[in-house]
Amino acid sequence: MRTDMGKIILTGDRPTGRLHVGHYAGSLRRRVELQNSGDYDKVYIMIADAQALTDNADNPEKVRQNIVEVALDYMACGLDPAKSIIFIQSQIPELCELTMYYMNLVTVSRLQRNPTVKNEIKMRNFEASIPTGFFCYPISQASDITAFKATTVPAGEDQMPMVEQTKEIVHKFNSTYGEVLTDPDILLPDNEACLRLPGIDGKAKMSKSLGNCIYLSEEPEDIKKKVMSMYTDPEHIRIEDPGKIEGNTVFTYLDAFSRPEHFARYCTDYADLEEMKEHYRRGGLGDVKVKKFLNNVMQEELEPIRNRRKEFQKDIPYVYEVLKKGSEAARETAAQTLHEVRDAMKINYFDDVELIKAQSERFENK
Amino acid sequence: MRTDMGKIILTGDRPTGRLHVGHYAGSLRRRVELQNSGDYDKVYIMIADAQALTDNADNPEKVRQNIVEVALDYMACGLDPAKSIIFIQSQIPELCELTMYYMNLVTVSRLQRNPTVKNEIKMRNFEASIPTGFFCYPISQASDITAFKATTVPAGEDQMPMVEQTKEIVHKFNSTYGEVLTDPDILLPDNEACLRLPGIDGKAKMSKSLGNCIYLSEEPEDIKKKVMSMYTDPEHIRIEDPGKIEGNTVFTYLDAFSRPEHFARYCTDYADLEEMKEHYRRGGLGDVKVKKFLNNVMQEELEPIRNRRKEFQKDIPYVYEVLKKGSEAARETAAQTLHEVRDAMKINYFDDVELIKAQSERFENK
Repeated sequence: MRTDMGKIILTGDRPTGRLHVGHYAGSLRRRVELQNSGDYDKVYIMIADAQALTDNADNPEKVRQNIVEVALDYMACGLDPAKSIIFIQSQIPELCELTMYYMNLVTVSRLQRNPTVKNEIKMRNFEASIPTGFFCYPISQASDITAFKATTVPAGEDQMPMVEQTKEIVHKFNSTYGEVLTDPDILLPDNEACLRLPGIDGKAKMSKSLGNCIYLSEEPEDIKKKVMSMYTDPEHIRIEDPGKIEGNTVFTYLDAFSRPEHFARYCTDYADLEEMKEHYRRGGLGDVKVKKFLNNVMQEELEPIRNRRKEFQKDIPYVYEVLKKGSEAARETAAQTLHEVRDAMKINYFDDVELIKAQSERFENK
Repeated sequence: MRTDMGKIILTGDRPTGRLHVGHYAGSLRRRVELQNSGDYDKVYIMIADAQALTDNADNPEKVRQNIVEVALDYMACGLDPAKSIIFIQSQIPELCELTMYYMNLVTVSRLQRNPTVKNEIKMRNFEASIPTGFFCYPISQASDITAFKATTVPAGEDQMPMVEQTKEIVHKFNSTYGEVLTDPDILLPDNEACLRLPGIDGKAKMSKSLGNCIYLSEEPEDIKKKVMSMYTDPEHIRIEDPGKIEGNTVFTYLDAFSRPEHFARYCTDYADLEEMKEHYRRGGLGDVKVKKFLNNVMQEELEPIRNRRKEFQKDIPYVYEVLKKGSEAARETAAQTLHEVRDAMKINYFDDVELIKAQSERFENK
């Protein structure tokens, strides 16, 4: 029987660049709230360098340089090493061994049907040349989640098929070898605008190569420049024209970031976002005014993050110390799970007194 | 620069059943010769339980019970723990981590083109339901071979595509990250009949489920029964009929096992196998006579193996002790290789004083 381990979070990011407001709205902000809620016994935050290497094998230097950037962004946002275990995936070799055992429980055709993998293959123009490691990363994610017996995976909607895959592996493993693994659930963002924040050009996804991201470490003048250049309603040409809210990036960002108190501080013409939207829809509200308001909101949100980041940047060895301690703690937990997994599979042969005894007797009677 | 490590052998078997004379002729007999030749600095013999689990995930007990059977067969044939490192694959977790890194260097379509994988999928009726672990086993084999810096892989012709895959991974890794891995070569059996010994029914492959194997541990009366029931030339009905040698299992076995001195001992009518074949071809030599001769040859070959096996069977704890010590020694070597691999990939971050220093300076200048 599995003992109740309480509520445990596992989540993380690939270290392929600095984090941006899309990461923040979609997951980081929530993580910090969850960390501080007191509702979780353990919070594991993984910097997924090994996963990043699955499609950056030719460029390990990119991954290597960005680990500290992601760690800085984490701590700047309020992830606190005293409350959360921040660790580096590649420092936990137990995850590889778990992955190998889970690979025996998932068919190739099941992986091919995974919508997230399908989509990412398309986005990355991989087609036939997809690296095997990338193809198998849903299995590797299952190993990340289950190694820490996570109950809760805070993630965007696009990650649902990945968590589904993990649940399937958990059920298959437990029914084949015995109840060892914990069945996790996804925790989606509660604000719909946060599910996937578009780039400032209105494109579906923020991407470094498209240059359409606002980074968490962005300087004030750059934030302003980016907000003022944002994609709105292309048919809203004169101020008096009626404007559309749907697909209007400025309003999507306001949905994600503005709160009623922002209006009291920066735009007293409206009590809240609904009133502002109403005016925009019927005409008479210009894009510049809305953008200036969004700029104020974003500046207020990002200033403390930027300042905290600058403090942490002054002591990089400390950041590595945090990651090292976190990795040691994470490794201890993963090793314990792996030991249980191997016991259930009965492959801890040398500890298995019963096996050796039974086989000795069998040969004696031959 | 890589230092010259001398000549190193890596080879092994899946523990899914006792070993038979096909294993012996195709690889085991040669291994013992190589071990005793003094030409190799290290000889690693791997019991591939993890690989066996890739298509036996539902039945780990089968794999678990057969590890000791394979170890007994090894030692009975003359593999000597004082000269060879006999170990269990699953006890070397470093192999999993290496596999994960190599998976990033091999595309899915490359794996799909592997003729051995294609063929095994067909033989096992896997088709779409092939387990991912089984699909990836050529990569896992590359990790087994390279972890020990093997120069030499004694194996059957059917394993050539596997060794090719390993060579590709070695070249890709070394050119991407730096010269760490050793490029291995396959060592094929020198006797053509040994490349793939057929079952006693003439079927291409010996298989437990077909009941067409002669096991190394077989009792004398069972060996005789199996030899006397062997498939020959179905058109060789009367003694005086001319007979065919090609595809005649009895003669294939004689090609693999008989030596001129056997004729002096058991069948003085002929000086050697060529003379016997000649008589069979022109007619006048009956199957029974040839089979009786083969029986004598097989009995002579298998008797000492069977007797040594019975001795080892009396002390199963000793066999496990051998495997444990071998696994410890193998693990030490694999861990050293993995450390070099991680250094080359520059993912030993916490030991990387230069990385931390360079990043501290970069942030200071921001």
